[in-house]
Amino acid sequence: MAGQLEMSSSLCCDLRAAKMRVLPKQQSADNLEYQSRTVCVCVCVCVCVFLFLFFLTASLNCPPCGAVSLPLLSLSQINCVTFPSPVCMPEQQLLKPNEWSYCDYFWTDKKDPQGNGCITGFEVLLQKQLKGKQMQKEMAEFIRERIKIEEEYAKNLSKLSQIPLAGQEEGTLGEAWAQLKKSLADEAEVHLKFSSKLQSEVEKPLLTFRENFKKDMKRFDHHIADLRKQLVGRYAAVEKARKALADRQKELELKTQQLEIKLSNKIEEDIKKARRKSTQAGDDLMRCVDLYNQSQSKWFEEMVTTSLELERLEVERVEMIRQHLCQYTTLRHETDMFNQSTMEPVDQLLQCVDPARDRELWVLENKTGETRPVDIEI
Amino acid sequence: MAGQLEMSSSLCCDLRAAKMRVLPKQQSADNLEYQSRTVCVCVCVCVCVFLFLFFLTASLNCPPCGAVSLPLLSLSQINCVTFPSPVCMPEQQLLKPNEWSYCDYFWTDKKDPQGNGCITGFEVLLQKQLKGKQMQKEMAEFIRERIKIEEEYAKNLSKLSQIPLAGQEEGTLGEAWAQLKKSLADEAEVHLKFSSKLQSEVEKPLLTFRENFKKDMKRFDHHIADLRKQLVGRYAAVEKARKALADRQKELELKTQQLEIKLSNKIEEDIKKARRKSTQAGDDLMRCVDLYNQSQSKWFEEMVTTSLELERLEVERVEMIRQHLCQYTTLRHETDMFNQSTMEPVDQLLQCVDPARDRELWVLENKTGETRPVDIEI
Repeated sequence: MAGQLEMSSSLCCDLRAAKMRVLPKQQSADNLEYQSRTVCVCVCVCVCVFLFLFFLTASLNCPPCGAVSLPLLSLSQINCVTFPSPVCMPEQQLLKPNEWSYCDYFWTDKKDPQGNGCITGFEVLLQKQLKGKQMQKEMAEFIRERIKIEEEYAKNLSKLSQIPLAGQEEGTLGEAWAQLKKSLADEAEVHLKFSSKLQSEVEKPLLTFRENFKKDMKRFDHHIADLRKQLVGRYAAVEKARKALADRQKELELKTQQLEIKLSNKIEEDIKKARRKSTQAGDDLMRCVDLYNQSQSKWFEEMVTTSLELERLEVERVEMIRQHLCQYTTLRHETDMFNQSTMEPVDQLLQCVDPARDRELWVLENKTGETRPVDIEI
Repeated sequence: MAGQLEMSSSLCCDLRAAKMRVLPKQQSADNLEYQSRTVCVCVCVCVCVFLFLFFLTASLNCPPCGAVSLPLLSLSQINCVTFPSPVCMPEQQLLKPNEWSYCDYFWTDKKDPQGNGCITGFEVLLQKQLKGKQMQKEMAEFIRERIKIEEEYAKNLSKLSQIPLAGQEEGTLGEAWAQLKKSLADEAEVHLKFSSKLQSEVEKPLLTFRENFKKDMKRFDHHIADLRKQLVGRYAAVEKARKALADRQKELELKTQQLEIKLSNKIEEDIKKARRKSTQAGDDLMRCVDLYNQSQSKWFEEMVTTSLELERLEVERVEMIRQHLCQYTTLRHETDMFNQSTMEPVDQLLQCVDPARDRELWVLENKTGETRPVDIEI
C-alpha cells in the first residue's frame, strides 16, 4: 500500500508536469493571424456552448452543476474545475494508456441519475466501491443460505438413518441394509463438513475482508470533498478579483477619457491613482489564480492517488471473491467425492449378499426339527 | 414356477420312497436277541421320555402340544405326527444335504414364543415369509423418506438459486457468480432426477413385487393346516381302533381262561365269536393305520413341495432386494457424478474472471470524463 501510494505520488508529480505542459504549449502560439482566427472561432463556439449549458442548467434546476463561465477563452469550467476549452483542447495522452484506469476517466462531474443534484466522478468511484462491498456481502448471505440448506439436509439424512425401518432384516442382506442406512449418516457427515467449511472458508472471509472499508471510504470522501470545497472558494476569489480588476480598468479608462477632454493635474493624479489600483487588482488576481492553481493541483494529485487506491481495492476484491468462489467449487467437488466413498462399504456388502448363506443362518436359529415323520407300522 | 413344482414333486416321490425305506429296515431286524434287547432299552428310555414330556407338557399348560403316546415302541408322536422314537431313530439322510433347505428342518411343532399355544414348523416358515414381506415394505418406506428428503433439498436449492442476491455483480465476475447461482438449480435438477429414479426404480419395485403374496401365503397356510387336521382325525381313529382291538383281545383272553376252567360248547362258540371280533378289530386298526399313513404321506409331500416353494420365494426376495439396493447405490453414484458436472461451467467461468477486463467494461459504461483539468493562466 505504501509502495502503491509512492508509485502513484511519483506518477502524480510526472502528471502534474504533464498537465502543466499543456497550457504553455497552447499559450505559446505566437503566430498572430492564427491566434486571432482561433480566438474568433473560440468566442463563437464558447458562446454557443455557454448558452447551451446555461439553458440546460436552468432547465435542470441545478444551479451549481454544469455552471460554465469563460474566465479565459481557452478554458471551460465545470463546477469550478477548469478544463481546456473543448474546441481549443490540446491532445491529452491518458495517464495510463490501455489500462482503463480509474485515474483517467472520472475528471468531470455528472448529473446524479437518482436525484436532481450532480455527483463528482470521484463519487461515482466511491459508489462502485460501496456497491462492490454490498455485492460481496450478498454473496456471503447466499453462502449462508446454502449452509442452512446443507445443515437441514444433513439433519434429515441423519434422522432417517436412525429410524429403525427394516432393522430386523437378517443375515448378509441385513448387514448390507444396515450399512446402507449407516451410509446416510455418513452422507450427513459429509454435508455437515461441507457446510462447516463453507462457513469458515467462504462465508466468513467474504464477510471479514476489508474491515475498515467504510471508514476508509468516508475518509477518502471527506478528503476529496474538502479539496473540492477549497477549489470552489478559490475559484470564487479568482472571479471576484477578476471583476475588481475589470472595475479598476474601467475606472482608469474613464479617467483617461476625462483627461482627453480636459487636461488637469487633478485628473492626472486620479489616473495615476487608478493605474496603481488597477495594477494592484491585477496582482490580486494573479495571487488568487495562483492559489486556485495550487488547490487544483492538490486536488488533482489526490484524485489520482485515491482513484488508483480504489482501483487496487477493486482488483483485490474481484481476486478475493474469485478465490473464495473457487474454494466453494473445490469444497463441492470434495463433497461429491466423499459422498461417493460413503457408498463403497454398501457396495461391498451388497456384493456379499448370499441367499444361501442367509438361509443357513436363519435355519440354524429357527429350525424346529429335522427328524422326518415316519409311517405307523403294526 | 411350474418347473420348480415339478422338480419338488419328483423330489417328493423319491423322498416318500426314502421315508418308507426307513421303517422296513428297522422292522427287518430278525435277530431275536438283538430285538428283545432293543425292546428292553426302548421301553426304559421311552418311559423316561414319556414322563419327561408329560411333565413338560403339563408344566407348559399346553395340552394338545407335545402330547406323546407310544402306539408302537419304535415311534414317538408329536401332535399326531409320528416320528421314529429318538432312541431307535435310524440314520436319516437330509433330503437336500448341505443346502440348509427349508424342507429338512421344519418337521416338528414348537412352542409359540409369543403365546401359550404351539406353532407348526410350517408356520415358522410362513412367519419368515411375512416378516420378509414386512422388511421389504419397510425398505420401500425408507426409500420413500429418502425421496422426500431429496425433494425438499432440491426445492430449497432451486429456491435459493432464484433469489437475486448479488445479482448486480458485473463483468466476468458477475458471469461466474450468475453461473454459480445457476449451478444450484442444476444441482436441484440432479437431486430431483435422483428422487424420481429412486421412486420408479427402487421404491415402486420393492412395493409391487409378489402381488398375490398374501393370498398365496393364506392358501399355503390353509392347505397345510387342513392336511394336519385330517392327520389329527385319522390319528384319533387309529387310537380308537387300537383300543377296540385291545378290548376284543382282552375279551378273547377272558373267554379262553373260562374255557380252561370249564369246557363248554357255549364257551367255544363265544371264543370263536371273540376271535372273529378280534380279527375284525385288527383289520379295522390296519385300515385306520393305512388311512393315517396316506394322510401323513400327503402332508409330507405338501410340506416338502410348499417349503421348497417358500425357499425359492425367499431366495427371490433376497436377490430382488439386493438388486434394487444395488440400483440405489448406482443412482447415488450417478447423482454424485452429475453433481460434479454442475460445477464445470462455474469452474470455467471462474478461470475467466479478470479484474482488468471488468474494470474496462465498468469504466466504459460509467466514466464521467477523461479530459483532465488544467491550471488557469492569465
